[in-house]
Amino acid sequence: MNAFVEALRALLGPAHVLQGADAAPFERDWRKRYEGRALAVAKPGSTAELAALVKLCAAHGVAIVPQGGNTGLVGGSTPDETGRQLLLSLARMNRIRELDAANLTLTVEAGCVLQAVQEAAAAQDLLFPLSLGSEGSCTIGGNLASNAGGTQVLRYGNARELCLGLEVVTAQGEIWDGLSGLRKNNSGYDLRDLFVGSEGTLGIITAATLKLYPKPLAQMTALAACDSLESAVALLGLAQARAGSGLTGFEVMNAFSLSLVRRHFAQLPQPLPESPWTVLLELSDAEGEQHARALFETLLEQALERGLILDAAVAESLEQSRGLWHLRESIPLAQSQEGLNIKHDIALPVSRIPRFVAETDASLQAAIPGVRLVNFGHLGDGNLHYNVQAPQGQDPALFLREQEPRVNALVFDAVMAHGGSISAEHGIGRLKREELGRRGHPVALDLMRAIKKALDPQGLLNPARVL
Amino acid sequence: MNAFVEALRALLGPAHVLQGADAAPFERDWRKRYEGRALAVAKPGSTAELAALVKLCAAHGVAIVPQGGNTGLVGGSTPDETGRQLLLSLARMNRIRELDAANLTLTVEAGCVLQAVQEAAAAQDLLFPLSLGSEGSCTIGGNLASNAGGTQVLRYGNARELCLGLEVVTAQGEIWDGLSGLRKNNSGYDLRDLFVGSEGTLGIITAATLKLYPKPLAQMTALAACDSLESAVALLGLAQARAGSGLTGFEVMNAFSLSLVRRHFAQLPQPLPESPWTVLLELSDAEGEQHARALFETLLEQALERGLILDAAVAESLEQSRGLWHLRESIPLAQSQEGLNIKHDIALPVSRIPRFVAETDASLQAAIPGVRLVNFGHLGDGNLHYNVQAPQGQDPALFLREQEPRVNALVFDAVMAHGGSISAEHGIGRLKREELGRRGHPVALDLMRAIKKALDPQGLLNPARVL
Repeated sequence: MNAFVEALRALLGPAHVLQGADAAPFERDWRKRYEGRALAVAKPGSTAELAALVKLCAAHGVAIVPQGGNTGLVGGSTPDETGRQLLLSLARMNRIRELDAANLTLTVEAGCVLQAVQEAAAAQDLLFPLSLGSEGSCTIGGNLASNAGGTQVLRYGNARELCLGLEVVTAQGEIWDGLSGLRKNNSGYDLRDLFVGSEGTLGIITAATLKLYPKPLAQMTALAACDSLESAVALLGLAQARAGSGLTGFEVMNAFSLSLVRRHFAQLPQPLPESPWTVLLELSDAEGEQHARALFETLLEQALERGLILDAAVAESLEQSRGLWHLRESIPLAQSQEGLNIKHDIALPVSRIPRFVAETDASLQAAIPGVRLVNFGHLGDGNLHYNVQAPQGQDPALFLREQEPRVNALVFDAVMAHGGSISAEHGIGRLKREELGRRGHPVALDLMRAIKKALDPQGLLNPARVL
Repeated sequence: MNAFVEALRALLGPAHVLQGADAAPFERDWRKRYEGRALAVAKPGSTAELAALVKLCAAHGVAIVPQGGNTGLVGGSTPDETGRQLLLSLARMNRIRELDAANLTLTVEAGCVLQAVQEAAAAQDLLFPLSLGSEGSCTIGGNLASNAGGTQVLRYGNARELCLGLEVVTAQGEIWDGLSGLRKNNSGYDLRDLFVGSEGTLGIITAATLKLYPKPLAQMTALAACDSLESAVALLGLAQARAGSGLTGFEVMNAFSLSLVRRHFAQLPQPLPESPWTVLLELSDAEGEQHARALFETLLEQALERGLILDAAVAESLEQSRGLWHLRESIPLAQSQEGLNIKHDIALPVSRIPRFVAETDASLQAAIPGVRLVNFGHLGDGNLHYNVQAPQGQDPALFLREQEPRVNALVFDAVMAHGGSISAEHGIGRLKREELGRRGHPVALDLMRAIKKALDPQGLLNPARVL
């Protein structure tokens, strides 16, 4: 191993190979669920250096754990405890390579922070729509490797749909230049989408060509109060029909989620009285604010007439719009102030959500009387963060320790029964690997294992993640 | 082989195993470029039957050529000349399995004709946006296997983007049920997108869950005359900024394309005087006709002011709109009336198109004085059907025979130099297999071969297509 680290230092320069205390920040995931020890942290400065590094690893049989901004939620990008895995940080590879405004594309390196990508687009009055809580520190390479979702998926799709081409270093240390700015390209198998979402287990994404959009002239937000999830789903259908793809956000929050925000962030205004479900709608408009407002008014009036909503409030200014989003975004913080809970990132057909929630809420209440559900998420995408909080007064840490397997089994059984997914946007990593092995379709798992073996026969790329 | 055919008859019933004259219509592609001989034509009636059939083929080492509506353009779905390949027709597997209006999804079997899929959606006032010339006979399985494009890609994406989940029979005859109606699902590798576009070489798509959209209240079409492709590209940018995703069509036609329509379909009205380039724009509007018309008027006025267009005509009725589309759709027929030509289905970054066309037109004129370019296509997607017609008075068949390799080399060299693709929406099949082998990125080709070997080690699925 010493010979390997020496060769690595010679390749990257000693400043870019970290060990000991310097390596520590890379060895623990940000939620502090996974803490490992890396052989070293390697920070290549270019694709060519990274490719040489992978060849070196292959020659020495050293496993590689790629890491972007280390904001993952499933333990996919920190090393295990053996001290034998190389942590590969893409942080130095963060150049914006090319913006082609007429083609609406942007080519960036994997280590670019998402916010920097957004800003590069905005500087040309264009929009890169991927947007999520960690955008100030997550990297586009990590976003693509985990096929990140976020708040604009309803209109623009996941990270996958925003990517036109990739540059990838294979397990053999070869460079595939697939940086295409093409909207149509049917020449062979779709390698791009195979690497997107593979969490660094099939190859290492080093750069990407991304889709841009014209920046909407106006964005406007409204809150609506619903007495049931059935009404919220019907409101979604109405909003999609009336606003078409102008509807760029449709988030749902249950009463308990917002009560936690009220308790822990009392200063945040909540314009609507408490109701079982609150929906946040966002319109993006190519024509301007007046048009967006008129559309909102017609839409919400129709929803009131049809009895789909109890009440609604349209933001009067950009600041108020931001305030409404801030409410939604404060839920994760408010729940962590309330204490640890059992988190789920699940997806369901939208049509199944009301029944899933009714049934699963009831089963959980029957199993653990007084249990509290922090249920919120991207209803427009069928994606709920269905989080289970200890009954009032119980120790959250103890609850997590004692109840997590039972709660997970109950929730995931219900998800599968309704044709859903146990991982909507966070990925599998280490956290859900066993669950995938148990619940994945056996033929799909065989296909995935065959692909893994074909592309990474030595098993050196992010081992024991996903599969 | 006799034992195999007997076993096949026992499996499917004798009525569903065709030979001799009954098999003939399946043995020739519709452009009549490929004519082969099949061992037999097998028409299974269910996924289970199809899976058993694949197991039988694997046991006997019989290669399988899947076929949907037999409308492919690259020889991907007809058998070779050996008489040893089984032609697998999906035609009997054409059930609409489920429409979930609240989830905006539709699950159909692979043999459903595209138009039947569109109609099933329309019956619920919903839209399945995939639309192409052969929609009356092509099947959704073939559309997905070849990742078909068409005229609505600008807004809704290719067949790939319209597919949420698949059911696939593997080369081992196993059934993968991946029929998910989920918008977000990050649980393992993206098998769906690996099968989509793999042209039946990795597995056989037997059913799919497709995305639906609310039906726009209005659709409106306009023609605009441009003096250059640079202006047409600038008009595209303006239209995207002003109309956002309301812009659902942006087609371009050069003067020669429209002159062929004028010559061969004189009865079709052409509302604008001849100009170097004519653009067809389509708006889809969730608010109604009046809104669409106002948007068109503002947009075209701005384009006139900026000198991007010479003239424009907005359709006054649905019938006129259809008439403008009919103009565009008559180009392939008009050119075939004019005689055989050398067809290309290429994609380029939109920003590169003006220079590509100027340079390639000039090189072709220099190489073959008097050569005529039937250049039209989906400019919004960077996809041109850049077809090369013999000089006036020359025998088209002779021209094709003598000039095709030279013309292809010249066009494809230019495509590659501009970062384009030699197959935008038609696929590789047999027609472009050698070209892909020559021009594909060597690392990509190695990855594809590894995947093919891993998933179909016997090499029985559509052999000698794609790779």
